[in-house]
Amino acid sequence: MNQPKSFPLTREQVEALTERFPTPFHLYDEAAIRANAQRLSAAFASLPDFREYFAVKATPNPFLLRVLASEGFGADCSSLAELRLCAAVGLRGERVMFTSNQTPDEEFRAARELDAIINLDDITHIDALVAATGSLPSTLCFRYNPGPLKDGNPIIGHPEEAKYGLTREQLFEAYARVRDLGVERFGLHTMVVSNELDEQYHIETVRMLFELVVEIQQQLGVRIHFINTGGGIGIPYRPAERPVDYEVIARGARELYAELIEPAGLDPLAYNMECGRAITGPYGWLITRAIRSKETYRSYIGVDASMANLMRPGMYGAYHHITVLGKEQAPANRVYDVVGSLCENSDKFAIQRELPEIEMDDLLAIHDAGAHGHAMGYNYNGKLRSAELLLRPDGSVVQIRRAETLDDLFATLDLAAAGTFV
Amino acid sequence: MNQPKSFPLTREQVEALTERFPTPFHLYDEAAIRANAQRLSAAFASLPDFREYFAVKATPNPFLLRVLASEGFGADCSSLAELRLCAAVGLRGERVMFTSNQTPDEEFRAARELDAIINLDDITHIDALVAATGSLPSTLCFRYNPGPLKDGNPIIGHPEEAKYGLTREQLFEAYARVRDLGVERFGLHTMVVSNELDEQYHIETVRMLFELVVEIQQQLGVRIHFINTGGGIGIPYRPAERPVDYEVIARGARELYAELIEPAGLDPLAYNMECGRAITGPYGWLITRAIRSKETYRSYIGVDASMANLMRPGMYGAYHHITVLGKEQAPANRVYDVVGSLCENSDKFAIQRELPEIEMDDLLAIHDAGAHGHAMGYNYNGKLRSAELLLRPDGSVVQIRRAETLDDLFATLDLAAAGTFV
Repeated sequence: MNQPKSFPLTREQVEALTERFPTPFHLYDEAAIRANAQRLSAAFASLPDFREYFAVKATPNPFLLRVLASEGFGADCSSLAELRLCAAVGLRGERVMFTSNQTPDEEFRAARELDAIINLDDITHIDALVAATGSLPSTLCFRYNPGPLKDGNPIIGHPEEAKYGLTREQLFEAYARVRDLGVERFGLHTMVVSNELDEQYHIETVRMLFELVVEIQQQLGVRIHFINTGGGIGIPYRPAERPVDYEVIARGARELYAELIEPAGLDPLAYNMECGRAITGPYGWLITRAIRSKETYRSYIGVDASMANLMRPGMYGAYHHITVLGKEQAPANRVYDVVGSLCENSDKFAIQRELPEIEMDDLLAIHDAGAHGHAMGYNYNGKLRSAELLLRPDGSVVQIRRAETLDDLFATLDLAAAGTFV
Repeated sequence: MNQPKSFPLTREQVEALTERFPTPFHLYDEAAIRANAQRLSAAFASLPDFREYFAVKATPNPFLLRVLASEGFGADCSSLAELRLCAAVGLRGERVMFTSNQTPDEEFRAARELDAIINLDDITHIDALVAATGSLPSTLCFRYNPGPLKDGNPIIGHPEEAKYGLTREQLFEAYARVRDLGVERFGLHTMVVSNELDEQYHIETVRMLFELVVEIQQQLGVRIHFINTGGGIGIPYRPAERPVDYEVIARGARELYAELIEPAGLDPLAYNMECGRAITGPYGWLITRAIRSKETYRSYIGVDASMANLMRPGMYGAYHHITVLGKEQAPANRVYDVVGSLCENSDKFAIQRELPEIEMDDLLAIHDAGAHGHAMGYNYNGKLRSAELLLRPDGSVVQIRRAETLDDLFATLDLAAAGTFV
């Protein structure tokens, strides 16, 4: 049974909005994001010290970070820029998790300055962190890569082919070493799936971490203070897909906690995760206007957005549902390729998609663009990245990122010097 | 027999360069680009009024546009931004070809202002151009999509699945129409391959266009003044691949000209192309430094560049050759994944690649990054796009694009407002 895809505004409301903010733009629904955040927190309330660290890379907008911080979320950062965004909105200390790989020294320093929890990706990063910052922090986390012990899923690949994390043997060696070097609080992190809709898979990840926590205690006497199960909770891009039930994962995790952690005397063990897509993905849309129509070997609708605004369909062949605003109830009796104007044939939002008849100037809402959407935008072909708007709970709309201009695009060029270059 | 991959500087010279310009950066070799441009022009000199329009999207740097313009090249633009770059370096009129799809009105206007040759992608764009600019220009070109009549290659897909161009029937209708509307000079364009190394394929494209030119004359009495065979000349990314021989294509085209165009009394017919990759691709390198080394299920070398600087390996699984500077003669007796620091497992420049042993601080030259390299950079994970440097024929090095800063990255954000947002 297909789930209807929701969109919070009418065609008339969006049309009015375009008078202030020309298409294309990303629109996020604050009330829906907050309600979703509260659902997640409520589901996991039975786990000790639950905290979600929002994966900043999914939607690196500081206004959204503020919204999520006010719901109690922290931030999961993987770069200097993301740490700076946290600093700008007042997130620091245990509210920030820094999970990076091939980490440059300056990023270790920035993470320490913010007093973020550092999650090391490799055993050699113990020395690298000391070399970069002069010491180890009192809290330290390691990222575990189970390798061939655990299957991956198609997006993240097989763990043994992934560049991330420590092997099991290295993990034990690392905890022993940093304990001997004076680290007092320990975290255990993994991230083995991406965009996974099967709750059981997430529960199995929890089991893997809980078992490791017990083994680490038994073998090393090192008490893990928190686990981080990573992100990877998927969203139903296709109407026929079922959303992940947070309650099912939380219940499974709580049962495992009772089965593995409590009997081992390791309660309380704080429970963290770092979802991105699941938090904002379904509550963001790319709004674009039909500007050209073309009939050749197929029927094409050209829109004013492109792969520069949403790369997943072109890059991964990913499905993103499309609603033609005002035609929600119209029969989907046409078949279109909905395409952007990039000079790349992969710049297609939909291929051979059944949709209602689209007329010029129709407004399209491309769904599930609230994560890994604007964030992955590029300037290929000199295309400009669009604005981001936030629909507030009171119905007002504020701009939370302005659209790029040609001046932005050319900011790193000295056009005057180029004009006389010989 | 493998071709050795060239690089114009020694390790010591690059090391010295990094004191002024920190890694990573793109480096282009002006002398090599000029020599290549001259080889192309010489090969095609036997065709009337040969002109190459450099595909700006491949490497949209205005300093390189100036270099190529001084070699007699024009510019092939597909967006407003690319038209503006041409204007900035004094390229206009017949030196600029505007080939766009799903074209917004403002881009038609910008192309007219520059007096560029407009290449229409669709029959409906005749009216769209009039609506946007009030008239038709005296010269007009159409893009032909042969559809199932011609096979594509893997990168561009099958023509009948491509969003570009007019069908054969539409093409004839379009020329008749614009002739009746007063257009005086006509061009015929196609682009059916991308990164194709087989010369015969390119020659077959020429045959297709020449035959069409004759048929259009015979059926409509419309005399085509120029053809544009598109780009699509590939480069040998792998050492075992053979570079395209311009002479072979040019000779094949000249023979077809004698066979088809001259007997039909259609000489002179100007001959244009719009290569990008073949012009600058092999003469640009991404220079990056090894900063981390990791041994888990594989051996990893972490470098300070990422997919933000060169997306082809991560996006297409494309091969880019790597030279470890100073170790050109060392045996390739190690197997590495060479990876960037993006929080994406696809951020790998090489997978299971045989290379000499790499030590920390070694400098790596990633080859064939001179086209579709910097241009496709994104800011995912908050990664910054790197500088572009030009090695001049006199051995000096000038910066032709500065590296991005965090201020550039945050330019479209109001961080102060975000910090107090409630």
